[in-house]
Amino acid sequence: MIERIAIVGAGLIGASIAHAARESGAAKSIALYDADAGVRARARALSLGDVFDDAAAAVTDADLILFCVPVGAMAEAAKAAAPGMKAGAIVSDVGSVKQAVADAVAPLLPEHAVFVPGHPIAGTERSGPDAGFASLFKGRWHILTPLGDSEAEKNAVATLATFWETLGARIDVMTPARHDVVLAVTSHLPHLIAFNIVAMAEDLESVTESEVVKYSASGFRDFTRIAASDPTMWRDVFLNNREAVLEVLGRFSEDLAALQRAIRWGEGDTLYDLFDRARRMRREVIEAGQDTAAPNFGRDTGGEES
Amino acid sequence: MIERIAIVGAGLIGASIAHAARESGAAKSIALYDADAGVRARARALSLGDVFDDAAAAVTDADLILFCVPVGAMAEAAKAAAPGMKAGAIVSDVGSVKQAVADAVAPLLPEHAVFVPGHPIAGTERSGPDAGFASLFKGRWHILTPLGDSEAEKNAVATLATFWETLGARIDVMTPARHDVVLAVTSHLPHLIAFNIVAMAEDLESVTESEVVKYSASGFRDFTRIAASDPTMWRDVFLNNREAVLEVLGRFSEDLAALQRAIRWGEGDTLYDLFDRARRMRREVIEAGQDTAAPNFGRDTGGEES
Repeated sequence: MIERIAIVGAGLIGASIAHAARESGAAKSIALYDADAGVRARARALSLGDVFDDAAAAVTDADLILFCVPVGAMAEAAKAAAPGMKAGAIVSDVGSVKQAVADAVAPLLPEHAVFVPGHPIAGTERSGPDAGFASLFKGRWHILTPLGDSEAEKNAVATLATFWETLGARIDVMTPARHDVVLAVTSHLPHLIAFNIVAMAEDLESVTESEVVKYSASGFRDFTRIAASDPTMWRDVFLNNREAVLEVLGRFSEDLAALQRAIRWGEGDTLYDLFDRARRMRREVIEAGQDTAAPNFGRDTGGEES
Repeated sequence: MIERIAIVGAGLIGASIAHAARESGAAKSIALYDADAGVRARARALSLGDVFDDAAAAVTDADLILFCVPVGAMAEAAKAAAPGMKAGAIVSDVGSVKQAVADAVAPLLPEHAVFVPGHPIAGTERSGPDAGFASLFKGRWHILTPLGDSEAEKNAVATLATFWETLGARIDVMTPARHDVVLAVTSHLPHLIAFNIVAMAEDLESVTESEVVKYSASGFRDFTRIAASDPTMWRDVFLNNREAVLEVLGRFSEDLAALQRAIRWGEGDTLYDLFDRARRMRREVIEAGQDTAAPNFGRDTGGEES
């Protein structure tokens, strides 16, 4: 068990870690810092832990330090916290991009700290400290991306694995680069597409925004949920995983062009085969325990589609 | 109250109408027909109503006849049922495309029947008679698209409106062409994009299908639900609403290309503004009662995203 963790950034993920660590007993004490005074005030009101007004003070005495800020704010957070880190402190993060975070943060940390980047595959469309909840990581994957295989790093991976497992997560280990390619497909591209269709629908000339909202239960509403995610976080993801995102986006556009052509030329068999193939993936997702089997996600507001 | 309805096509929608009509008392008796003998057997086993082996026999004596088959099967269903229709019978359908259905079905019906196409904005990713349930239409919109404004059609619109309201729906009236443009945005394009990304992810070289499934809680899984919808139904939608779909798809691709460019050139402000704009639409959808406000749709399998 870890004596003391320090959470830098008290948004949805940071606050959820605080709740989960307390509830599970994964850490004896919890220190928090956020660069935003308003967020610090909320963190105090929510009793998330010992809230500090200074990053370096927050991480002093911490055995494990977790950076829970948008990818683009990682360097600043690391710079502010570094002077307070004790010898042997394990440092990790929860950023959605790993190579860029590794490159930006590693050089800023003291020699006596051990840095292993990480990423919990968990979240909701909400943001801020009030959005946090203890069960967020239960049954979800947590990816660790060690930068080397020194003894210290191996021990840090083991400590982090135990910590996240205590929070309910399952552990995977891969390289930062591999993480970024996989997440470009499973997360970054889906979000980009959702942002794009929702923004597009908002300023169409042919259909009004209120019509789109009114009839959104026919499919569109699903995309609005993902597109409600924090814009700062997502801006940073796309700026920092550019290559992998552009690559998979190119493939998406290519396939979409082929689909467009099949529609234009009335190629029913091509459409049917593709739709039928796509259908099978749902079953696998449910069998893997990655989504509910209930129709319409079990949402309680009636039906959808067509 | 309607004495007798006949449902032609006992899939998700037809079966749901049967359940809802019985539960609400919207019709005294319910006749059903399906071209598939296996579906008829299930409809009998589920006691959905009086199941007939012949379409014309099923609609005899019916005051209201509802075609609940894929858009591409409407003409065949109408042809088979037409000889049985009594004078003054009201005929409608639930197809996701309206102009093509109107054009295909209207000429096949007897002069003494009154045809008003319709479309319930309701459904799930499931299909078949076992997927039906009584509350599917509760709080959802039902769009009626009358083809003229004769006295008979006005009366039919009033009767259909009362029927669907008794099932829990809210009524809208518009032209078939307008319906097809609006639904191309709110339903057809979202489904096309979901089918495309899921099919693409299935045969990427860089990331395996099992990796995609494993990390799908980061956003991708949402798309798999929509992409699990009936492939026959959706093939017919795209074949029969080609123009409107191609138009809005062109706009989507154009906007996506601009987004791609913003990522390539690292234009953070452009990305932030677009993501922030997209975020607002979610609030409107929830305020309009078209989706649950619970994070992650309230699904019970843990978190998502990033």
